[in-house]
Amino acid sequence: MSVVVVGTVALDSIYTPFGSVEEELGGSACYFSLAARLYDDVTLLAVVGSDFPDRHVECLRTRGVNLAGLQLAEGPTFRWKGSYLDDLNTAVTLDTQLNVLTQFRPHVPREFCRPDVLFLANVDPDLQLQALSQVSGACLKVADTMNYWIESKPSSLTKVFSAVDIVVINEAEAKQFTGIGNLPAAAKALLGLGMKALAIKRGEYGCALFTQTDYFVAPAYPLERVLDPTGAGDTFAGGFVGYLSRVRQLTPDSLRRAVLHGSAVASFAVEDFGVRRLLRLSVEEVVSRCRELRHFTYLEAL
Amino acid sequence: MSVVVVGTVALDSIYTPFGSVEEELGGSACYFSLAARLYDDVTLLAVVGSDFPDRHVECLRTRGVNLAGLQLAEGPTFRWKGSYLDDLNTAVTLDTQLNVLTQFRPHVPREFCRPDVLFLANVDPDLQLQALSQVSGACLKVADTMNYWIESKPSSLTKVFSAVDIVVINEAEAKQFTGIGNLPAAAKALLGLGMKALAIKRGEYGCALFTQTDYFVAPAYPLERVLDPTGAGDTFAGGFVGYLSRVRQLTPDSLRRAVLHGSAVASFAVEDFGVRRLLRLSVEEVVSRCRELRHFTYLEAL
Repeated sequence: MSVVVVGTVALDSIYTPFGSVEEELGGSACYFSLAARLYDDVTLLAVVGSDFPDRHVECLRTRGVNLAGLQLAEGPTFRWKGSYLDDLNTAVTLDTQLNVLTQFRPHVPREFCRPDVLFLANVDPDLQLQALSQVSGACLKVADTMNYWIESKPSSLTKVFSAVDIVVINEAEAKQFTGIGNLPAAAKALLGLGMKALAIKRGEYGCALFTQTDYFVAPAYPLERVLDPTGAGDTFAGGFVGYLSRVRQLTPDSLRRAVLHGSAVASFAVEDFGVRRLLRLSVEEVVSRCRELRHFTYLEAL
Repeated sequence: MSVVVVGTVALDSIYTPFGSVEEELGGSACYFSLAARLYDDVTLLAVVGSDFPDRHVECLRTRGVNLAGLQLAEGPTFRWKGSYLDDLNTAVTLDTQLNVLTQFRPHVPREFCRPDVLFLANVDPDLQLQALSQVSGACLKVADTMNYWIESKPSSLTKVFSAVDIVVINEAEAKQFTGIGNLPAAAKALLGLGMKALAIKRGEYGCALFTQTDYFVAPAYPLERVLDPTGAGDTFAGGFVGYLSRVRQLTPDSLRRAVLHGSAVASFAVEDFGVRRLLRLSVEEVVSRCRELRHFTYLEAL
């Protein structure tokens, strides 16, 4: 099986109460790939500028991420600067420089036009639609987004959500997109667009999975110290989608297990700055934490 | 087995987006009793004024709540007026009239001085300490509180928390009391006071249980419409403590099941205004919802 991800690769500068980093490897497709590659082959479609450090390219390549779809454009790489100084749950964006991202036109190389799974990471929904149009076959299509696109391109986003099998978004975004403050009611409205499953990321409260017939809740892994929450949602998606790609089935049970894997991988990501923890993460560590997560809610039959 | 609860009985006026009620039966001990009586004998220690309607007394009595410790004082009953018009998760207190509550001195009748379980519902921690001093024997002692006492009487509250076996409080209160914004770290600090278990109520995110050796998470029941969240926390405590009293054991498994029962009973309470849903609630309905809650997190072995 293989996963193709369309999204961003960025240079992130991050400030938290525990320290800061400058121009670290980041971006939605990057976090996703470094998580999903623990499960399956991953091909990354994104754009970087001429200033993108070779060491970051090497970093991804040596972790097995296929970079055949990484475009190199003239100009500086997309940059994001954010702070969590007051509240580790909420990023304050200090600066966004789109740079070469404004020129990005996803081009799915011919040999990847029939992937098994297509993940549309957080990026302009019009670009997500472009990528969707290039992919044929009965692949599993999954999409994420962010508040910026809900506000600026709700109609394109509705087209994306209506065209994919699974949507992975956070709780505030689900409520914002539907205009419904009650989560189960917002989830029902989203499922009404036709998707098969909806994974709602709830940060320190874990994840809730809604389908037409099932409801599942996974706790977050209890961490006494979160160093940097950047990319936790993209990492969740990487574990979630990566697991589904590996097991090659979309059943209530596989979806539930996928949520657990996403939660486990994301819990590692926030233990260090940027993608650092993901670079040294093993499948065995993830499986061990999945077992712990399962135990946190376990009860013999009532 | 028997449960003695010390707390308040109130006349509540409540405003939510779905309607309002005036001078309804309320108060921490009242919600607790109406939940706990589904599991075991409950004796209520509280004070009401001379204006307290006979129908409310009858209402409690016909549901099997022992009122031998209900004091009648000269003057008006404790009244609370609250609104959830903007956010169903947060009550805005519009008016509090302590009235006869200022004269309340918990007196544990001689025949109830050796209960199996003592629950100190939300009330002045100095009164909680008075009640504790009157109870002898190896009974299970459980306490709740609210932000008002954390701010005004932190040292009395620390004495209460140090003297009981289990503390049941909500997440914001746990963080406020300890001054620690990370929940697992705040829980560790609270457990350091000597209690055996700590149940953290998280509203729509369910409940987390911490002990020295165990961590358990129960989801909230997903409701598309919450009519009135008043008393949900007291009701949780009633199901949680009632279950423990009934099964007569304090083990990791019984604590986990108690959390599920508390969550299930609380999910019914918010379906109607005030205590109304609790008045017509059956044990069978609670058990059925417990099974659903368990299923929401269930996974075969990994």
